[in-house]
Amino acid sequence: MSGDRIRTAIATVCLSGTLEDKLAAAAAAGFDGVEIFENDLIASRRSPSEIQRLCGDLGLTIDLYQPFRDFEAVPPDVLRANLRRASRKFDLMAELGAETVLVCSSVSPDAVDDDELAASQLRELAEVAGERGIRVAYEALAWGRYVNTYEHAWRLVRRADHPALGVCLDSFHILSRRSDPRAIRTIPGEKIFFLQLADAPLLNMDVLHWSRHHRLFPGQGAFDLAAFTGHVLAAGYPGPLSLEVFNDVFRQADPRPAAVDAMRSLVALRDSVGALEVPEAPRLAGHAFAELAVPGAALASLGFARVGTHRSKPVQLWQQGAARVLVNETTVDGAIGALGLTSADPAGSARRAETLLAPVLPREQGPDEAALSAVAAPDGTEIFFCGNDDWLRDFVPTGVVPAGMGITGIDHVALTQPFDHFDEATLFYRSVLGLRPEPVSEFAAPFGLVRSRAVGEGEVRLTLDSALVRRGEWAPGVPSPQHVAFACEDALAVAQAMREAGAPLLEIPGNYYDDLDARFDLPFSARLRENSVLYDRDEHGEFLHFHTELIGSRVFFEVVQRIGGYRGYGVVNTPVYMTAHRERRLSLARSVRPA
Amino acid sequence: MSGDRIRTAIATVCLSGTLEDKLAAAAAAGFDGVEIFENDLIASRRSPSEIQRLCGDLGLTIDLYQPFRDFEAVPPDVLRANLRRASRKFDLMAELGAETVLVCSSVSPDAVDDDELAASQLRELAEVAGERGIRVAYEALAWGRYVNTYEHAWRLVRRADHPALGVCLDSFHILSRRSDPRAIRTIPGEKIFFLQLADAPLLNMDVLHWSRHHRLFPGQGAFDLAAFTGHVLAAGYPGPLSLEVFNDVFRQADPRPAAVDAMRSLVALRDSVGALEVPEAPRLAGHAFAELAVPGAALASLGFARVGTHRSKPVQLWQQGAARVLVNETTVDGAIGALGLTSADPAGSARRAETLLAPVLPREQGPDEAALSAVAAPDGTEIFFCGNDDWLRDFVPTGVVPAGMGITGIDHVALTQPFDHFDEATLFYRSVLGLRPEPVSEFAAPFGLVRSRAVGEGEVRLTLDSALVRRGEWAPGVPSPQHVAFACEDALAVAQAMREAGAPLLEIPGNYYDDLDARFDLPFSARLRENSVLYDRDEHGEFLHFHTELIGSRVFFEVVQRIGGYRGYGVVNTPVYMTAHRERRLSLARSVRPA
Repeated sequence: MSGDRIRTAIATVCLSGTLEDKLAAAAAAGFDGVEIFENDLIASRRSPSEIQRLCGDLGLTIDLYQPFRDFEAVPPDVLRANLRRASRKFDLMAELGAETVLVCSSVSPDAVDDDELAASQLRELAEVAGERGIRVAYEALAWGRYVNTYEHAWRLVRRADHPALGVCLDSFHILSRRSDPRAIRTIPGEKIFFLQLADAPLLNMDVLHWSRHHRLFPGQGAFDLAAFTGHVLAAGYPGPLSLEVFNDVFRQADPRPAAVDAMRSLVALRDSVGALEVPEAPRLAGHAFAELAVPGAALASLGFARVGTHRSKPVQLWQQGAARVLVNETTVDGAIGALGLTSADPAGSARRAETLLAPVLPREQGPDEAALSAVAAPDGTEIFFCGNDDWLRDFVPTGVVPAGMGITGIDHVALTQPFDHFDEATLFYRSVLGLRPEPVSEFAAPFGLVRSRAVGEGEVRLTLDSALVRRGEWAPGVPSPQHVAFACEDALAVAQAMREAGAPLLEIPGNYYDDLDARFDLPFSARLRENSVLYDRDEHGEFLHFHTELIGSRVFFEVVQRIGGYRGYGVVNTPVYMTAHRERRLSLARSVRPA
Repeated sequence: MSGDRIRTAIATVCLSGTLEDKLAAAAAAGFDGVEIFENDLIASRRSPSEIQRLCGDLGLTIDLYQPFRDFEAVPPDVLRANLRRASRKFDLMAELGAETVLVCSSVSPDAVDDDELAASQLRELAEVAGERGIRVAYEALAWGRYVNTYEHAWRLVRRADHPALGVCLDSFHILSRRSDPRAIRTIPGEKIFFLQLADAPLLNMDVLHWSRHHRLFPGQGAFDLAAFTGHVLAAGYPGPLSLEVFNDVFRQADPRPAAVDAMRSLVALRDSVGALEVPEAPRLAGHAFAELAVPGAALASLGFARVGTHRSKPVQLWQQGAARVLVNETTVDGAIGALGLTSADPAGSARRAETLLAPVLPREQGPDEAALSAVAAPDGTEIFFCGNDDWLRDFVPTGVVPAGMGITGIDHVALTQPFDHFDEATLFYRSVLGLRPEPVSEFAAPFGLVRSRAVGEGEVRLTLDSALVRRGEWAPGVPSPQHVAFACEDALAVAQAMREAGAPLLEIPGNYYDDLDARFDLPFSARLRENSVLYDRDEHGEFLHFHTELIGSRVFFEVVQRIGGYRGYGVVNTPVYMTAHRERRLSLARSVRPA
């Protein structure tokens, strides 16, 4: 199957702005076509023919006009009004140059539970449509009054038996009801008139509310869209893969990056169904470095030593064990600006990232310097792909050998995400780097709820946090601090050594330890308390961790010890250290205007 | 029943910030006591005895320590660990000076479905607690594994039969399951150890998710908390009315106004159960005026005439029919700054408002000027209570008589609410002014979803709109424009007259009318289109309305005609005129930094 033959489309309802904003964003992201959502057209000053012209200029086809509601299985007088309404919409579609209309199964109190009546009326509609060269794609809404499964919609279409009538399949309506999508293979491909794709998190709520507020682009949620799409393609569906996502956040986010995010989801999806050749994600062996702007003294107090100076850039290399930190002197008070990941094939990693629409960063490369490939993550973090340690030759060794205080490497990097970019970040790291997302968890931070999700594979681990509600003026700390977590083998000893060396370690309140003592009977409880080390456990093992104070305004460090097979990140303790960081963040809030 | 004997409390989990922020806010709002939420204490640097001292200094009692989870109906080894855990918490409570602990019904996989075991273990806990002078309030979580109704919790408490064991009743857990609260009256009052109150909107979702994210203060949601509280008081419950509200927005909002909002909910609730004497809301006859800052020319083009000048302030009175607009020349480009409402008893309205914690505004009153009482709404809008037309004598008549273009009065005022204040505003207008809230509706505006709710009584109508997700940088128009809607008897004629007079009326796209023609067969369809008048209908009647362009940046006008008994506000058309307002708002967004 050639990927070039599978076209891509997006419903205008996925994006924020006016119809013109949406079309421009879809075209810029490389979509072949769009579904025009009726309300977007109604509010536009452009006539349908002007919109057709605009789409033509932008290189977009209009693959669907939608939705037409509450048509079938009604009394004769309602049918007459519905056919009149349809006729007006077909006029509009002719002007628009749209050949397919979406008809959703009725939710109207006028409708009756009569398959024969529904089929005969759909046939009547198809007859009128067919004469105009229009195709009717009939879709079962998950909350349709009588028709709410794709099997039922297909039964009606088969019974109506008209060439201008087919089904529209929507992954959300099908997967949210836990219908078995395998029977899609029994539908002749040419009778599948349209395919709408949406992912979603698994939420236990009314399916209408779930659909209207929480849909996601493929790869951001919990549905198996590769399998679903595979069934539709196996049936011989010849049309576009089209996204229809209703999401509270995307509806108000800048449509330009949102459209790129949407297109990335379709590149990844076509890759996973073998319909597009995307270079495989090379294996990532671990964290090569993290780059940020902190005073060298803070790193020295944690046992790091300055082991190198970049040949051409104002960057110092600090090291302890296998943990390497680049200090960029040009940034006065920045968060984590860049991550280096060790790739089995850096050029391959970069090629995959580029295919998945990650912006490739231009690099100034001095003579004799390593050719490093880098791309930008959605939040602007630069991701470098490093081949083993050859990038180290860009640094002139200082000759200093770090004595160290027990840090052995980088355990994970915590990239706090801007409110609008949480789901986009998941998709980026999953598709571009091949990292596996963990389930989303929520916790109550002192200034509001926070969502947290880890993505990782082997020794590469990132955590993504974001506010559940976009912060306002009261909540301090926008942008929120990020941190690098270093690994060690004895957190208690390392904490003690660092404290003695004058490291700016965070003091944890005694109340935390009183609670720990009530919950667990730990032999090393007193030492945790003495050293302000936090504790967690899961079914696989135990976790000890401690933190520095905020260093500057945007960053701090953590030191972690994993015992046994502990897989988490101590999220349960996050509110405790966030509260401890409060004073610093509050004082910053006074000078930084929150967004 | 004397209101003075019913104490008020609030759980620290209701509010944002650190424990110290929360306690300060609760005290400032006048609460008698607090429930200390364990996580707030754990993250605090203050020891329990320091917190007791702080509460004492603030005049707050600690009425509850909560929650203690997963205690009952477990195997012997788990019971031992649970008793050890309880014992540590009792130590802490002794230091804190808290006498009652909340024990929630178990959700643990360790628990078994055995009422006798559960009761005997609760008795054992109560025995330990009682020796320490502590009372155990046992609560059925709505999602408890085996115990999830208050009747079941009470059966266990009765069976355990220990003086230190009683029930905790939580309105959310009871009303969310649609349990009948009347049986509460059969519980002896002295066995009701604690009462937690929360309201909520009716949402069709998993009760745990509903509870954790969407609780509201009493009067903001859909539960009948007056009836509920009446049953508890009738049973003879002697303790405080305590709020326990988990809400995504309140959790991140400034705790000081949130605590006042919370206290207002308890004033109104005690009023409605006859437990507090609050002056009744006098009848409001209608809108006396709206005050804003617009150029006089804009009003003149709508047929208004300047009929008066304030004796001592830089304020002009413009009038047409019974619609009066005050133009405040000191505000260059403001939204609606003040509303005048005609009250049957202005002083009574002000007394009620003050009792319900509305800030009373100081007024400079010149000689011979009317004594106007005014209070501030949560968004800062000033609400004036006017007795008939006596306030008009503050204006020196210009002698001009408005010819008019058909406006007869003010139909409603649309007060767009800041994101954080939507539910607070509902409670304010409901309790302070006695307006009846309509159900919340949602619509998709061009830059994100909007919630809308009307509050009204007779001829006083307000609409409250707010973004569903706090807007970021892409979405323009923060703060959103507000508007005054004038009434007329023939919208088509009025629109035509105004257009001829050069009023800055908004042009509505032809696509809107094509859709209208497809949906309805209206005899006056062509005239709607010609005059850019929008249309809606409900089961009671029809609605015609049109809008001006934005005048300045924060305000516009609407003219409406209600035919028959139409009760709505044409919300279905809002996205159309919001899109039409876009260009102006976008240009503003470039100069105003959104919050």
